[in-house]
Amino acid sequence: MIIDFRVRPATRGFLNMHIFRNQDRIARWSGNLGMTPPPSAKQGNMELMLKEMEEGGVTHGVVTGRQANAFMGNVPNDDIVEIVNEWPDKFIGVAGIDPSNPGKAIDEIERVVVNGPLTAAGIEPGVLPNPMYCDDRRIYPIYEYCQRHDIPMLVMGGGGNGPDLSHSNPEHIDRVCGDFPNLTIINTHGGYPWSEQICFVAFKRPNLYLCPDMYMYNVPGVANYVMALNTFLKERILFGTAYPFIGFKEGVEGVQALPIKPEVMPNFLYKNAARALKLDIGE
Amino acid sequence: MIIDFRVRPATRGFLNMHIFRNQDRIARWSGNLGMTPPPSAKQGNMELMLKEMEEGGVTHGVVTGRQANAFMGNVPNDDIVEIVNEWPDKFIGVAGIDPSNPGKAIDEIERVVVNGPLTAAGIEPGVLPNPMYCDDRRIYPIYEYCQRHDIPMLVMGGGGNGPDLSHSNPEHIDRVCGDFPNLTIINTHGGYPWSEQICFVAFKRPNLYLCPDMYMYNVPGVANYVMALNTFLKERILFGTAYPFIGFKEGVEGVQALPIKPEVMPNFLYKNAARALKLDIGE
Amino acid sequence: MIIDFRVRPATRGFLNMHIFRNQDRIARWSGNLGMTPPPSAKQGNMELMLKEMEEGGVTHGVVTGRQANAFMGNVPNDDIVEIVNEWPDKFIGVAGIDPSNPGKAIDEIERVVVNGPLTAAGIEPGVLPNPMYCDDRRIYPIYEYCQRHDIPMLVMGGGGNGPDLSHSNPEHIDRVCGDFPNLTIINTHGGYPWSEQICFVAFKRPNLYLCPDMYMYNVPGVANYVMALNTFLKERILFGTAYPFIGFKEGVEGVQALPIKPEVMPNFLYKNAARALKLDIGE
Repeated sequence: MIIDFRVRPATRGFLNMHIFRNQDRIARWSGNLGMTPPPSAKQGNMELMLKEMEEGGVTHGVVTGRQANAFMGNVPNDDIVEIVNEWPDKFIGVAGIDPSNPGKAIDEIERVVVNGPLTAAGIEPGVLPNPMYCDDRRIYPIYEYCQRHDIPMLVMGGGGNGPDLSHSNPEHIDRVCGDFPNLTIINTHGGYPWSEQICFVAFKRPNLYLCPDMYMYNVPGVANYVMALNTFLKERILFGTAYPFIGFKEGVEGVQALPIKPEVMPNFLYKNAARALKLDIGE
Repeated sequence: MIIDFRVRPATRGFLNMHIFRNQDRIARWSGNLGMTPPPSAKQGNMELMLKEMEEGGVTHGVVTGRQANAFMGNVPNDDIVEIVNEWPDKFIGVAGIDPSNPGKAIDEIERVVVNGPLTAAGIEPGVLPNPMYCDDRRIYPIYEYCQRHDIPMLVMGGGGNGPDLSHSNPEHIDRVCGDFPNLTIINTHGGYPWSEQICFVAFKRPNLYLCPDMYMYNVPGVANYVMALNTFLKERILFGTAYPFIGFKEGVEGVQALPIKPEVMPNFLYKNAARALKLDIGE
Repeated sequence: MIIDFRVRPATRGFLNMHIFRNQDRIARWSGNLGMTPPPSAKQGNMELMLKEMEEGGVTHGVVTGRQANAFMGNVPNDDIVEIVNEWPDKFIGVAGIDPSNPGKAIDEIERVVVNGPLTAAGIEPGVLPNPMYCDDRRIYPIYEYCQRHDIPMLVMGGGGNGPDLSHSNPEHIDRVCGDFPNLTIINTHGGYPWSEQICFVAFKRPNLYLCPDMYMYNVPGVANYVMALNTFLKERILFGTAYPFIGFKEGVEGVQALPIKPEVMPNFLYKNAARALKLDIGE
């Protein structure tokens, strides 16, 4: 079993995003990571993508809606609901939440997570039309609601998260983890490029998971994630390809080539994700 | 000779601190570092601790009072005075100073350092009931006093220092070192997890010493401290176990297994500490 | 061919700077890097320096004027003009610009770059008498002017840049690169000591070049620069000695001993510099 924690499948609203439409940009980002975008990404072909998932041994993908600025684009949660309804054994759905209006945000979480088929809520505060830091007080009612209802939250906290690097500085997510100690938080993009600092935040905060996803490949700092994964974060680092940036086969083989301890590999590839999302999928 | 720069002995006020009372928490922190708390720590047994020190080859321990928030707890300086009076050849005492009232702070330094048996003054501004940054202007009279009286200062500048990671960001201690160039400052917890950045601050600031203590063990960034210790910081990195988090034998063996140059090891284990504190203990 | 991107030749105003006059300080900084200042630096001897350049195989040096605080000193642009006029095949001149008065700054760029023999404009906002961050809005008219006139800009963004470490925090230059996407920016001192973070900023920003110069030698973080240079920044990291801190032969041999891929080495040693400055010097 392998759970890919960051997948943007080649269907519905995802096909309108720049990550499928701007082939030059995706080629540049993939190339930076020493990768080439997989054929299904270039074609925007869902059938081929499912075949590639299977070939890569990826059994499940976590798929998240997006409420972002004009450049990053939107994927409505109803698309995510359709995706998990169409492929219930393949995709795990996460609601993409716009935190700029907490009341509406909570209503939406209630609609698609509490009363709907989605598993968690996700925010990307740095890439809103008016960017926020993740410790912005306007988001606190949403954290409180999710903590109270035991809903895990994905918080984009690394990579191209926000207009500048400060949005990924781990001091922000550190505050949120401290203020909501019973909320499970998954840092998507894993706080990169602050690998030493974010690993230490997770050292202190048992409620924080890291998904470095595409930043586990050929960039400075990977050795820090691997060291932490092999020791004090063995239950809290997650695998993800950030497909379509990285193909499934290439992504799985890439992490298998890292010096991750064999006994920790199953944690990394699926057990940690299953625990973070409280999934009922067996060994 | 080995000087352990961060010891909380199993006696007096230390026994009331969470680091002795909350066995679960200490086991989790030690476990994160790949360590197990030593027997004396679990029992809060001073006699056993002294025996463990001897077995580990640790001849001296630096013991610091604490004036902190309710969670971290307090150890009055009179306890430290008693400890150095009881074991004058074993422990070097540092006054724990509350910097939130500079006048009272300076009176206390005068009482227990200038006119008493303690060797240095220590502050932990991030874990006060109302946390401060170490470059808070309210602390400046204290820095000025210690610079004028040639009293070394320990400043907690890493680890669980403060409500969030920003309190350990080396920009704060960099300012203090620049503003008080004749004050000897020892960064306890060594600015971790900002190893590359804090090593460079020490590169620029000849008055700064680093004591990474527990963060010399099995965490990302250790290689940076070792590289700096072997070269440009060979006279300014200090050994410490942060006992009770790490036992003496385990701690000494742990650093002996690091690729520290043999000719630098005595600096690390005691000479740098003796110089920083202007101790009159021989080679 | 080798282009040394950071040279302060032993002539004219440079001889008045502390880096030539304060032998103790230069010995300390060089020593920190495991280096010894070259003979020409101690003597302030230009003829000897040119001989050392030749012995080191350094064919070209980039020489920048300086408008800084009393400690760092000034080198007027007329000195740089004289230097490139005297040795036109040896030195490439960069105007040192005081950004605190944008109108005067733009006039000066027009005078010595647009209508003069200099190749680029350089600012060091952290070491002005009244330090600025490089994303200070007062500098924005200058960035805009250089972007419009296709003039590359050197921005000191690492090392002893400013009164404290925050001035080198890559979030500042990240904003500038994002706000002026068609301006070529070269970060002198390469954003050190923020190697992982600045490499990622350059990953995102195709208009950013890094010149780690003296911080490619024996300090924590070098491995990050080398990893990035071998992969996603193979066209954007530049060689520099920061002479007189490091001699030419020592500097070239030092980087040749690093695990830089042979096919990338010519990029690092001269091709990237030639592209960044749009130089018309052949292969």
